[in-house]
Amino acid sequence: MTTQHEDDLVSLKNLVQELKLKLSKYENVETHKQRSKIEEMSSEVTDDNPYSRLMALKRMGIVENYERIKDYSVAIVGIGGVGSVTAEMLTRCGIGKLLLYDFDTVSMANMNRLFFTPDQAGMSKVDASYKTLTNINPDVEFECYQYNITTMDHFDPFLQSLSNGGKAPKKPVDLVLSCVDNFEARMSVNQACNELDIKWMESGVSEDAVSGHIQFMIPGRTACYQCAPPLIVASGVKQIKREGVCAASLPTTMGITAGLLAQNVLKYLLNFGSVGYYVGYSALTDFFPTMVVKPNPHCSNRWCMVRQEQHKDNPLSLQNTNCNVDDEEPASHADNEWGIEVVSSVQEEDDEEIARNRLQELGEGIDYAFMRSDELKPSIDTNNVVEVDGNIDELMRQLNEM
Amino acid sequence: MTTQHEDDLVSLKNLVQELKLKLSKYENVETHKQRSKIEEMSSEVTDDNPYSRLMALKRMGIVENYERIKDYSVAIVGIGGVGSVTAEMLTRCGIGKLLLYDFDTVSMANMNRLFFTPDQAGMSKVDASYKTLTNINPDVEFECYQYNITTMDHFDPFLQSLSNGGKAPKKPVDLVLSCVDNFEARMSVNQACNELDIKWMESGVSEDAVSGHIQFMIPGRTACYQCAPPLIVASGVKQIKREGVCAASLPTTMGITAGLLAQNVLKYLLNFGSVGYYVGYSALTDFFPTMVVKPNPHCSNRWCMVRQEQHKDNPLSLQNTNCNVDDEEPASHADNEWGIEVVSSVQEEDDEEIARNRLQELGEGIDYAFMRSDELKPSIDTNNVVEVDGNIDELMRQLNEM
Repeated sequence: MTTQHEDDLVSLKNLVQELKLKLSKYENVETHKQRSKIEEMSSEVTDDNPYSRLMALKRMGIVENYERIKDYSVAIVGIGGVGSVTAEMLTRCGIGKLLLYDFDTVSMANMNRLFFTPDQAGMSKVDASYKTLTNINPDVEFECYQYNITTMDHFDPFLQSLSNGGKAPKKPVDLVLSCVDNFEARMSVNQACNELDIKWMESGVSEDAVSGHIQFMIPGRTACYQCAPPLIVASGVKQIKREGVCAASLPTTMGITAGLLAQNVLKYLLNFGSVGYYVGYSALTDFFPTMVVKPNPHCSNRWCMVRQEQHKDNPLSLQNTNCNVDDEEPASHADNEWGIEVVSSVQEEDDEEIARNRLQELGEGIDYAFMRSDELKPSIDTNNVVEVDGNIDELMRQLNEM
Repeated sequence: MTTQHEDDLVSLKNLVQELKLKLSKYENVETHKQRSKIEEMSSEVTDDNPYSRLMALKRMGIVENYERIKDYSVAIVGIGGVGSVTAEMLTRCGIGKLLLYDFDTVSMANMNRLFFTPDQAGMSKVDASYKTLTNINPDVEFECYQYNITTMDHFDPFLQSLSNGGKAPKKPVDLVLSCVDNFEARMSVNQACNELDIKWMESGVSEDAVSGHIQFMIPGRTACYQCAPPLIVASGVKQIKREGVCAASLPTTMGITAGLLAQNVLKYLLNFGSVGYYVGYSALTDFFPTMVVKPNPHCSNRWCMVRQEQHKDNPLSLQNTNCNVDDEEPASHADNEWGIEVVSSVQEEDDEEIARNRLQELGEGIDYAFMRSDELKPSIDTNNVVEVDGNIDELMRQLNEM
């Protein structure tokens, strides 16, 4: 054996040691990063219990059985400024399972909203979310779907995943959250949820970044997304974000909208407080209108009409909601051009008592996202009902023709 | 050279390759993590511009000069569930400088709120925040102060840092945000801001996790923290978080409160919309009361009285606020036991028009955090004025004796 060879061996061995040492630093950090899974949520008040402050909701008399949050699965469509924060909130609350849908990738232009970080630029939004969320709470089960739900070939798999509650057939998801930024995707969620009879919550922010809203949709019992033009909080710009426009956005408005959405999910799943049917937010004036929109008896969506027929003996009970509308009150359809009934509960008071039970066309500060039918003749005009056969592409084609 | 040696060399070389490959993955991620600094905010709509969606606020007519956000420095006291999220929002918006104060460390019991991650357990909250925030936006300048502002030896350095705007003397901070979870710390912030004549915003969440509020304090022109008992949104539990009680908390309520706070900061600094003087949030009912509290002419805080005297010819202009109270209206002090005037603008409407300009004792759903003076005789009782000489410890001692 030559000296040269011996030297080579020694220096190689040293290099290996050095590399192993360097690597161990990263790997230690990596192993440190993951907390171990927790089988049972504990109320124990210790610094190492991630659930102590949530389980305290029981002691405070707010939630009767917090642990059952582990039984629920929620689908979040659109993991952007609202969807990602909603996903993080539900993850930190220990939700059972999240199904995440988004076809987009993270870019630096997303950094003015919460959640994604510069090092994730270029990653798919679902992969980046999975990495962040599973690190935060490994007790939550995640499934990622990186596709566009509005395309013909993905709508059926989307429907399938919602009704299976994931990739393997189990029970349907308990709730679908629409956190998308365009009309087509909202229509797809609406179609899927009407067809599968799954409750969903819609969310949106305005192009000018200073208003947002959430809305709870119960197929056949509240207005669906096609029963009426989308309701928005009136502000400078009247449209929900349009495709192709560089909309402004703020982490504040997005965070508040996500907070209202996730809070509504918790209230609905864990049965506390009043679930909001529509909660709007105007940042400029700190104005938060609430209301309920009943189904349009002439809705153009066939599945909405099927669900309305199914629930005709079981109309929306407005008890235990933030709209304490008297169920005994005779149903009266406000005289508006959409033929739908809008029940406003914009926070109001008078000298006598709080009067929330007023029926009116639209609450103060609320407007339709689109122009009225006499200006635009959209499909939702009740005089111009579009026949829908459950085929979303056909629906889109017809809507785009309007 | 033996075959054995040759084999050793080959396998060692392979091992080196393998280790280098593994290492490169970590090192790439690590170097990739930091985005480079950006000198000038650009409106350019490209995927790699982190400010495009913020600069779009100008195009939308919301903010006249977004870039001036870089000129402002904000102190955040308490980097917990509200403070950390507020810091992240302002960081993502590209605020000039943040001064972060917290003496506490991250624990797993913090994981049910946004921001901190399990791998940060054991780190100081300010260090963990610095690491996360500087990664998100290296354009923001951060200074960390890991001490308890309520102790005698830290109150003066705290005062100094606010008036210097950091460790080196520059200009005073533009705003102080109180995101603490106890009475003493709020009193210290109040004392510092009255003494230095710096505007501040208070925030709080209830022990039962289902309500929160923010309040804007202008020394001498709005009520200070000692002018009246703290106002909270009425819910099951009536106290702001008490020391030693394992309070419940939710990422939703904390996130919404942080969002309202950061939004108010943006509205104030960038001059858009109406800055809220008091915005409350009740999660159970989606109720968001707003109001203004004027200074108590018999406030027990000496510096508050000094500021009131200074501003006596310049009372609070309630224009461009969410409380459109007519300045011409004769000042009338509501007949309440604190001798202060509370101007409520709880969102209300009647058949004629929106009537927000009503004076009344307290808005619907609002209550004092503490018991009334006839039950407790607190220092803020105007018949029992405490002499304060600017020494916060002495103040505390006197208050604790009440």
